Amino acid sequence: MPPPSSHPHLPLLADSVRLDTDGVHLLDRRVFPFEHHWVRARTVEEVATAIEQMVTQSSGPYFAVLGGMVLAAREAAGEPDARAHLRAAAERLIATRPTNDQPRKAVAWVLDEVDRGAADVATAALTGARAGEADYRGRCAEMGRAAARLLPQRARVLTHCWGDLYLLGMVEAALEAGKRPSFVCTETRPYLQGARLTAESLAEMGVQATLVTDAMPASLMRSGQVDALVTASDRVSMDGHVINKIGTLQLATAARAFDVPFHALCHAPDPDSPTGADVPIEYRDGSEVLHALGQRTAGPRVRGLYPAFDVTDPALVTTVVTDRGAFAPEAVADYWRCG
Amino acid sequence: MPPPSSHPHLPLLADSVRLDTDGVHLLDRRVFPFEHHWVRARTVEEVATAIEQMVTQSSGPYFAVLGGMVLAAREAAGEPDARAHLRAAAERLIATRPTNDQPRKAVAWVLDEVDRGAADVATAALTGARAGEADYRGRCAEMGRAAARLLPQRARVLTHCWGDLYLLGMVEAALEAGKRPSFVCTETRPYLQGARLTAESLAEMGVQATLVTDAMPASLMRSGQVDALVTASDRVSMDGHVINKIGTLQLATAARAFDVPFHALCHAPDPDSPTGADVPIEYRDGSEVLHALGQRTAGPRVRGLYPAFDVTDPALVTTVVTDRGAFAPEAVADYWRCG
Repeated sequence: MPPPSSHPHLPLLADSVRLDTDGVHLLDRRVFPFEHHWVRARTVEEVATAIEQMVTQSSGPYFAVLGGMVLAAREAAGEPDARAHLRAAAERLIATRPTNDQPRKAVAWVLDEVDRGAADVATAALTGARAGEADYRGRCAEMGRAAARLLPQRARVLTHCWGDLYLLGMVEAALEAGKRPSFVCTETRPYLQGARLTAESLAEMGVQATLVTDAMPASLMRSGQVDALVTASDRVSMDGHVINKIGTLQLATAARAFDVPFHALCHAPDPDSPTGADVPIEYRDGSEVLHALGQRTAGPRVRGLYPAFDVTDPALVTTVVTDRGAFAPEAVADYWRCG
Repeated sequence: MPPPSSHPHLPLLADSVRLDTDGVHLLDRRVFPFEHHWVRARTVEEVATAIEQMVTQSSGPYFAVLGGMVLAAREAAGEPDARAHLRAAAERLIATRPTNDQPRKAVAWVLDEVDRGAADVATAALTGARAGEADYRGRCAEMGRAAARLLPQRARVLTHCWGDLYLLGMVEAALEAGKRPSFVCTETRPYLQGARLTAESLAEMGVQATLVTDAMPASLMRSGQVDALVTASDRVSMDGHVINKIGTLQLATAARAFDVPFHALCHAPDPDSPTGADVPIEYRDGSEVLHALGQRTAGPRVRGLYPAFDVTDPALVTTVVTDRGAFAPEAVADYWRCG
């Protein structure tokens, strides 16, 4: 049993990684919404494995890494070189998702607080993790408000995969502003996050969620049924390339062809990624493409290919929405000159 | 048990609707390639129902309608107004697929031969059906040869859904010409025809088939891994709009964005469809989008939407390949002025 939610008014996915005395509890997104099964990770290695095995995704790994670093600090408390132990844990956790840079940020929250030396390692790690969570949630709310301002009154929004806590923040902000958005969600094969996670969470919030296959959006755009494409992004380079779940690029080309604006949400552009080519693209096991909900979809002579992310050129992006507001993609580096 | 194949050198799907004395035998494409299950349709109504229930698809309905009309002729043989009986059967069979115009053509082959009056109704219907089959296979071979000429030596071909007998004809012609094509197949949700049918049949022919989800092709095109997009089409309007399986439009917009040529194969433009807006788009039950191989993919509050076809504008099409050769889309009406 996981500890009780600290955010009971939010959809379940918005509080689906919880730290407790006996480990980190992760809602298993691979079987959600059909089962509400929680995985307990008692060690850093178990947290890392859970992330690699896709128990959680989207903002989940960020919270899981915060929790994992607290576990590492508890383990390190009795050791002679606690900092070395934490550093090894950090490397292990960061390596779980080479394309997404959130684990790196989560690690920094904990290490920085430990390095301040204001308390013992375990206490400092917990303080850092809590601050990292509060910061993340605050930024998501900011991004949500900025994105909601871009939507018309009864926006028909197309989204792809799960747009992280800040998609949820956008819906909250839009509803608070009296807007009445509805959503078309791609199912997002092969894991079907759009079908299982995004659409479900929108429905939990009382928002209409219509599911389509990943191939259908262009047709809806051509017939004028989509007002905006809005997605999360795993990373945005300093020159405005958007790296996100595979399929985002294809939707962006269709959006451009049919004059639908594409708003990509991202906390901040990544100073370590000057351009899109600097971001490593994770290839996952091709056999995952050959299965749907565990069932085989193709014969044994067929091979699967699974690039997990793609890169969308700035020319195909209308707006990058950050926690410091909206930027044109080619001007997104200005993020670091403001705020 | 179905009767033996008349084309044992071809992939199974190329001869998957067979007429026998006890009815029309249809290979059930809904469970292929995992099961080789044949459905026997003993009456026109059972043939129509099998088509509507997607037992067969692509070129399958054409052959099923030919067989269904022979069944109708056998039933009509003892009736006072055989022609009226045949006409009613024809209407029932044509109504099974409102977007695809092949059933209409199949019906014409049988009715025209019956109307010639050179033999009794049942014999004439069989003669007409056989001629309709030979004609169709011959045209597919012609289209295949014309399409193969458009491919480079080691073409990496992206296709979507099943390209009918003429995609197979294209592969045969390319191999005969010493070319070595390989294929990337979209899985084509919700029925997964690309995964289950296209990729499998290509593998049967010894051609490399790589499966991707419907959202991945743009990324492959951006990184230069696709030389041509080649699809079938359910209909082409006289002004060059291509109506095909939902998702074709989205791939076409991506192909245009990354300068990949798009060749759409179609026996002939439809003289009854002056433009794309004249073609009715079939909406199928949205619940089909909410399932994968029979398993539910989304929670109960999510609704599904399933437009089964889309319309691609001629500006996004490079070539329409017909059984009279290749045309620029805006010139495809010339088909009817040549040959």
